[in-house]
Amino acid sequence: MLTDIEIAQNCKMQPITEVAAKAGLSADDLELYGKYKAKLGRETWEKIQDKPDGKLVLVTAINPTPAGEGKTTTTVGLGQAMAQLGQNAVIALREPSLGPVFGIKGGAAGGGYAQVVPMEDINLHFTGDMHAITAANNLLCAMLDNHLQQGNTLGIDSRRVLFSRVLDMNDRALRNITIGLGGKVNGVPREDHFMITVASEVMAILCLANDLADLKKRLGNILVAYTYAGEPVYARDLKADGAMAALLKDAIKPNLVQTLEGTPCLMHGGPFANIAHGCNSVQATKMALKLGDIAITEAGFGADLGAEKFLDIKCRAAGLTPSCVVLVATVRALKYNGGVAKPDLNQPNVDALAKGIVNLDAHIENIRKFGLPVVVAINAFPTDTAEEMAFIEQHCQEMGVRVALSEVFAKGGEGGKALAQQVLDVLAEDQSDYHPIYELDQPLTDKIRAIATTIYGAKDVNILPAAAKELANIEAMGYGSLPICMAKTQYSLSDDASLLGRPTDFTITVRTARLSAGAGFVVCETGAIMTMPGLPKKPAAENIDVEEDGKIIGLF
Amino acid sequence: MLTDIEIAQNCKMQPITEVAAKAGLSADDLELYGKYKAKLGRETWEKIQDKPDGKLVLVTAINPTPAGEGKTTTTVGLGQAMAQLGQNAVIALREPSLGPVFGIKGGAAGGGYAQVVPMEDINLHFTGDMHAITAANNLLCAMLDNHLQQGNTLGIDSRRVLFSRVLDMNDRALRNITIGLGGKVNGVPREDHFMITVASEVMAILCLANDLADLKKRLGNILVAYTYAGEPVYARDLKADGAMAALLKDAIKPNLVQTLEGTPCLMHGGPFANIAHGCNSVQATKMALKLGDIAITEAGFGADLGAEKFLDIKCRAAGLTPSCVVLVATVRALKYNGGVAKPDLNQPNVDALAKGIVNLDAHIENIRKFGLPVVVAINAFPTDTAEEMAFIEQHCQEMGVRVALSEVFAKGGEGGKALAQQVLDVLAEDQSDYHPIYELDQPLTDKIRAIATTIYGAKDVNILPAAAKELANIEAMGYGSLPICMAKTQYSLSDDASLLGRPTDFTITVRTARLSAGAGFVVCETGAIMTMPGLPKKPAAENIDVEEDGKIIGLF
Repeated sequence: MLTDIEIAQNCKMQPITEVAAKAGLSADDLELYGKYKAKLGRETWEKIQDKPDGKLVLVTAINPTPAGEGKTTTTVGLGQAMAQLGQNAVIALREPSLGPVFGIKGGAAGGGYAQVVPMEDINLHFTGDMHAITAANNLLCAMLDNHLQQGNTLGIDSRRVLFSRVLDMNDRALRNITIGLGGKVNGVPREDHFMITVASEVMAILCLANDLADLKKRLGNILVAYTYAGEPVYARDLKADGAMAALLKDAIKPNLVQTLEGTPCLMHGGPFANIAHGCNSVQATKMALKLGDIAITEAGFGADLGAEKFLDIKCRAAGLTPSCVVLVATVRALKYNGGVAKPDLNQPNVDALAKGIVNLDAHIENIRKFGLPVVVAINAFPTDTAEEMAFIEQHCQEMGVRVALSEVFAKGGEGGKALAQQVLDVLAEDQSDYHPIYELDQPLTDKIRAIATTIYGAKDVNILPAAAKELANIEAMGYGSLPICMAKTQYSLSDDASLLGRPTDFTITVRTARLSAGAGFVVCETGAIMTMPGLPKKPAAENIDVEEDGKIIGLF
Repeated sequence: MLTDIEIAQNCKMQPITEVAAKAGLSADDLELYGKYKAKLGRETWEKIQDKPDGKLVLVTAINPTPAGEGKTTTTVGLGQAMAQLGQNAVIALREPSLGPVFGIKGGAAGGGYAQVVPMEDINLHFTGDMHAITAANNLLCAMLDNHLQQGNTLGIDSRRVLFSRVLDMNDRALRNITIGLGGKVNGVPREDHFMITVASEVMAILCLANDLADLKKRLGNILVAYTYAGEPVYARDLKADGAMAALLKDAIKPNLVQTLEGTPCLMHGGPFANIAHGCNSVQATKMALKLGDIAITEAGFGADLGAEKFLDIKCRAAGLTPSCVVLVATVRALKYNGGVAKPDLNQPNVDALAKGIVNLDAHIENIRKFGLPVVVAINAFPTDTAEEMAFIEQHCQEMGVRVALSEVFAKGGEGGKALAQQVLDVLAEDQSDYHPIYELDQPLTDKIRAIATTIYGAKDVNILPAAAKELANIEAMGYGSLPICMAKTQYSLSDDASLLGRPTDFTITVRTARLSAGAGFVVCETGAIMTMPGLPKKPAAENIDVEEDGKIIGLF
């Protein structure tokens, strides 16, 4: 089989104007970025906003494993399959970050015959959204340090600066730095940190903002530091919000691209799924619902993080009502959850499958707790056996949950028709009774407890003193009614990455709490969260190259 | 009169496809970035490369003063005027840097009725070139620090890293930093520095590269560090050149925009005019020469820096032969050179003008030393008097040099017709005998001496020991035949910013020398050069804002 980039480069893309036409848009509705990318601006939204909404389908997954699940691939393939079944489907996805492309990860826009294209552009600068977020974030930092330098009339405590600079680069040497060295004219010395751009609160804000006015208001609300007197300092106190919004005036517009089969895809925003909520922008989802009869979107990591935040944070904030959740699993990943080591996953092993399928069960039950119908998608691998597949089907039947094999990686939309049909059946027959898992007016600790016990299956929550103090402080500042954004390992339902399957009898330990007042949530960290990745010994960048005619090679 | 941004926003722009048509290009030749911006790629170059070249006109200026000279405004207005005279003129300009927009400077795309539009886009992210350069630069830095972290097989001396990170932001707190703190997994601690993006050697390379293959070769040649054994380490040794070139595959394509009057303008690249050569890209200039019968371009700072480097570095490297040089001055700036303080410049003062005009004389004589005909353009200000103007005309007549009043700021192309006619007369009547001021095979110190004595008018050059040692080292490494890129204050012909007019009897002191092996020149610093600006007490960013419909305000 060809590599992802070979498949993508072999694809004869349709002009984006033709793709847009499928979603009922004319060339005038597009701001073109070359022939195959476009932004959809405010005028386009105003034109379509009164159309009835389509049905919203969320694609999520079991806890990720080194075996790979293929959630984005399934999302893209499902959209392609819907189109093949004659449905007007529009996909909404996160846009990839540049930094990881040069590390281990390579590209991130689906795989095999279920990809979004132009793959190289999407994985490099795309339409510049990440760069705009980087610039807006760093302008705020420059203005803060300039305030310290120019007399510090707000009395900012340089030891209590909360907002960090960002770069869209895997660069571990920037994790912990000291800045402002070199004497009086070169700033006030202090400790600082660079994060990767997708970890910026500006990214979370862009993804949750309804429009430019809402964006600007949220930017102003970013808590950047405390004063010596312990008072909060917001971005608006530094008068940074207007210029930041100006920098984001185009980044806030959703990007339209296409799948390998020409299905429209809105690709916009990509916040972390630990310290942020891990879904594409609200605006992209809303547009997909106006442009498609079926809007298919995904959320980061497994359902315990991604789907929970999608349903408790994003859908609630944006007034979205999903109709169906697709839960992606693979035979290999379930066997891994059953205790099989990675090198042995190619061997048939129904016993391990039976042991590991409890992870799937937990996520099925969790999604039902939100009042939503589930379809299990088994993303096919060549090493899967008929016996293993039959076991899963039998199991799902006993759980009363629909299941379908998805072969979109190898076959594109054709390979996703069975899955698409199951989803269509849900949309036609099953009732959605979506509701969040907690109420906003509960105390912050009760909301944390609800997520930990109801979704993760923890028996208890241990909030360490530093976190408890900050949670009390956040409530005292008037932010007690915000939702919780849990930062937890994605590899386990618990906060211990090594506990696979469906752990029981564990406690979730909340170590720190942090207010993202602009994004509108309280981040609770249950362990050390890496906000700036590093490069591996042999970075992917060493193999990435461009030929004389501009063709990119070595991106995978 | 309206502000620059009001004039720009009132302008009814032509679709960029129509602007391109004036230069003989069809819609297929354009990679659109919205309706009013486009990139011209390799295919377009291949289509036009065999056309005969137009005539090349360089716009330069006297030494800059706080009074303002309006070089870009004159360049844009001259292009507009040429079009009004029925000429097929194409302008080639540098693209502005984002950072200074939020500091003191505001926008940088001409002024009054001689501007390039869309003004806000050009001053914000434009087509993403600056961001791509930032990313390519910082990828190299991340790979270098990752090499130190992952065992340092090349033996890089972390005290002798020469290549710095960049951000397109005025951020003085990043001038001097320590990175790699926090223990073993977080990198190797060392001193580092951020520069503003336009100071990156990657920018200079992009502007001097002939094509993508040349770009990649030059990127590989960047000298990033020395080893403990004193051997040079290049970007290619870190295998960074391919991925850097991939990041720049679109940034290398010139951008097409338009003036307020619809004149085609290629706006591409913007290297510093001190530690780099200060001109737009070679590719943009070459395209302008193919697309226009007259190509009008400019160089940074005054003629002693900008024109010298344009003629000694860029034209020589790219095989360009200019036909005419326009030298911009203002009555106010000449009076300032004659000793008048800024608050008093509104008062008529022919005596001061007579005293300060020696600065103009020096630049006229210098341009003639390159074998080129000169036209003096007096950029009109409302406070200029007829007597002052008459004095300048009389003086130029005595010098045997053409002169014209330029009123393009207030009147657009109409106000530049007199200047355009003088330039047309030069092109029709005067002979160009362009030759650089020194030969490449001279020793580095002789080349420095040639610039200092012939152009600056210095009586002597003092090369300090550190610089002498590095110049010897550079020659020993085999780079002795590179041209010199002088980094000197722009405010004086000397290296002392306070010496206005035409200083004599001064010595140029070369403090450091640095090899830009990728760009292909040796930078000689004659004083402390600021490569990372700071924000002022009240940054321009505080007034920049965006309205609900996306309209930018407060940019000036």
